[in-house]
Amino acid sequence: MKKIINDPADVVVEALRGLAAAHPDLLRVTEDPAVVARADAPRAGKVAIVSGGGSGHEPLHGGFVGPGMLDAACPGAVFTSPTPDQVQAAVSQVDGGAGVLLLVKNYTGDVLNFETAAELAAADGVEVRSVVIDDDVAVQDSLYTAGRRGVGATVLVEKIVGAAAEAGADLDTCARLARAVVAGARSMGIALTAPTVPHVGEPSFTLGEDEMEVGIGIHGEPGRRREPLPGAEGVVAALLEPILSDLPFAAGDEVLLFTNSMGGTPLLELYLAHGIAERVLAERGITVTRRLVGPYITSLEMQGMSLTLLRLDDELTRLWDAPVQTAALRWGR
Amino acid sequence: MKKIINDPADVVVEALRGLAAAHPDLLRVTEDPAVVARADAPRAGKVAIVSGGGSGHEPLHGGFVGPGMLDAACPGAVFTSPTPDQVQAAVSQVDGGAGVLLLVKNYTGDVLNFETAAELAAADGVEVRSVVIDDDVAVQDSLYTAGRRGVGATVLVEKIVGAAAEAGADLDTCARLARAVVAGARSMGIALTAPTVPHVGEPSFTLGEDEMEVGIGIHGEPGRRREPLPGAEGVVAALLEPILSDLPFAAGDEVLLFTNSMGGTPLLELYLAHGIAERVLAERGITVTRRLVGPYITSLEMQGMSLTLLRLDDELTRLWDAPVQTAALRWGR
Repeated sequence: MKKIINDPADVVVEALRGLAAAHPDLLRVTEDPAVVARADAPRAGKVAIVSGGGSGHEPLHGGFVGPGMLDAACPGAVFTSPTPDQVQAAVSQVDGGAGVLLLVKNYTGDVLNFETAAELAAADGVEVRSVVIDDDVAVQDSLYTAGRRGVGATVLVEKIVGAAAEAGADLDTCARLARAVVAGARSMGIALTAPTVPHVGEPSFTLGEDEMEVGIGIHGEPGRRREPLPGAEGVVAALLEPILSDLPFAAGDEVLLFTNSMGGTPLLELYLAHGIAERVLAERGITVTRRLVGPYITSLEMQGMSLTLLRLDDELTRLWDAPVQTAALRWGR
Repeated sequence: MKKIINDPADVVVEALRGLAAAHPDLLRVTEDPAVVARADAPRAGKVAIVSGGGSGHEPLHGGFVGPGMLDAACPGAVFTSPTPDQVQAAVSQVDGGAGVLLLVKNYTGDVLNFETAAELAAADGVEVRSVVIDDDVAVQDSLYTAGRRGVGATVLVEKIVGAAAEAGADLDTCARLARAVVAGARSMGIALTAPTVPHVGEPSFTLGEDEMEVGIGIHGEPGRRREPLPGAEGVVAALLEPILSDLPFAAGDEVLLFTNSMGGTPLLELYLAHGIAERVLAERGITVTRRLVGPYITSLEMQGMSLTLLRLDDELTRLWDAPVQTAALRWGR
């Protein structure tokens, strides 16, 4: 295992110290339990948006804490759900009296622990809602999931709901918008290599020199099949076809296209694949009106990519365009 | 070789198509010769800032084209200098009548080809200045370089000079600022793995399972030495010591700390290393007042990192903080 780390047991807390040092204007970190919160939290009268999950998917979620997106993130150990206490601590740090929305990726541990945290927070008198994100069309159930996994749509949900909360939307509206984004988004990923979890020390799986895993999860969970790695045209087709047929997306749709690196795939390849996806969508009569290209929901150093398509309407587009100030996404003012 | 590409010969042009598709608001691409230019170029009366170099270092340089940073970028083949014709085409696309500043990383091919391009542009009646960037303290000469290599400081020069040009600074002022940033910046990098150039198909070098290359270049050029990979504390020390002693940086200095991923190193590790660097600098009495953390000047999928320190004064700080709107760096308005 080749990594720039000290003791594998300290990776997450040491990385959080670096995050806090790098972005004092945006966020602050508490270490026990680990919570990344907006520097200006709590904001009185504003719905607070809280997410979290295992570490190793950076910049998700800590890199999305700040004005216009998350109020707090709860980073678990690498690829491990945060604890209920941790989520409860995040909720109590950022609750501004207008309620808290928990955005939960659909993994069994996350769902259970956020549910327990919601009960603890409710007992403290905080109004809490949860929305589960399950946009991955690759498989129905998986290693850590009953039902579909939550992947790329998470970034889009956090941005759009974060914008609504920033603009003063109430808790019901925020929850409705989160469900709307989940309903309109579909994702799928492939991997060329495996990630290595620091405290494990070995790659999560092995792939042949000419193979890709189609439908990979963000923890190296198996997908639909393995097959010889095709050219980029074939990779994009393997990702887009299941996405398009699932919702289904159709000619005349306006969409946001999110082309995501799993971490180890360089931008040169990612933009190349993005260009192909734009061309294929145009051929289908689907209009890409918004884009996001880069490593935003990763699996450590895994090489691979995912595509996420979100059907847009005026409301979602306006919220996507709204200003955001976080470590990883920043535009407007 | 596992990559998401079609024909290796078409990698750069296909990636540029994706870049153009992703950022129509910011930039436009011409393919023959390959130039990435601001969507609103030329800007009459504004000094134009042009850079370029081999591809494979994305987001450098195309990801830095836009208001407040570069007017144009000339992407060569992977790890290969752009041609003089290409640079000349970029200059003529963005020249707004107030002169053009070429920012050139110190590699023999780049220096020669930008020099020829400057002569061609001058013959066309364009006022051109060039500033060579050579911030890498690792080695005096290298595989592709006489003198020090240009690495991380390139990003900082492009941002700071881009801000000055956007605010109306004249050509002499832009050139002076570029030289000031080069004079005040020092960098050094390490690698844990090698990059694979698409048209080569094999890793650029081999490293033992427990080894790091100290003082690596961004094309996989050798550095100072190979040694067993230490923990993150050791990695940061191996990078910081030569940087600090070179300028030298001293207690009381205010600096920008740029912690850069070489591509394949995940943010979890990068922020961990950044936190250590911040702590060590604080112990030395050096105050980090600005930061940049992420993959901004990369070497394809190479795992590794570099640190760049820039001594700041009020003028450089103000220009760093000025608004920028590019694919890879975006803040303010």
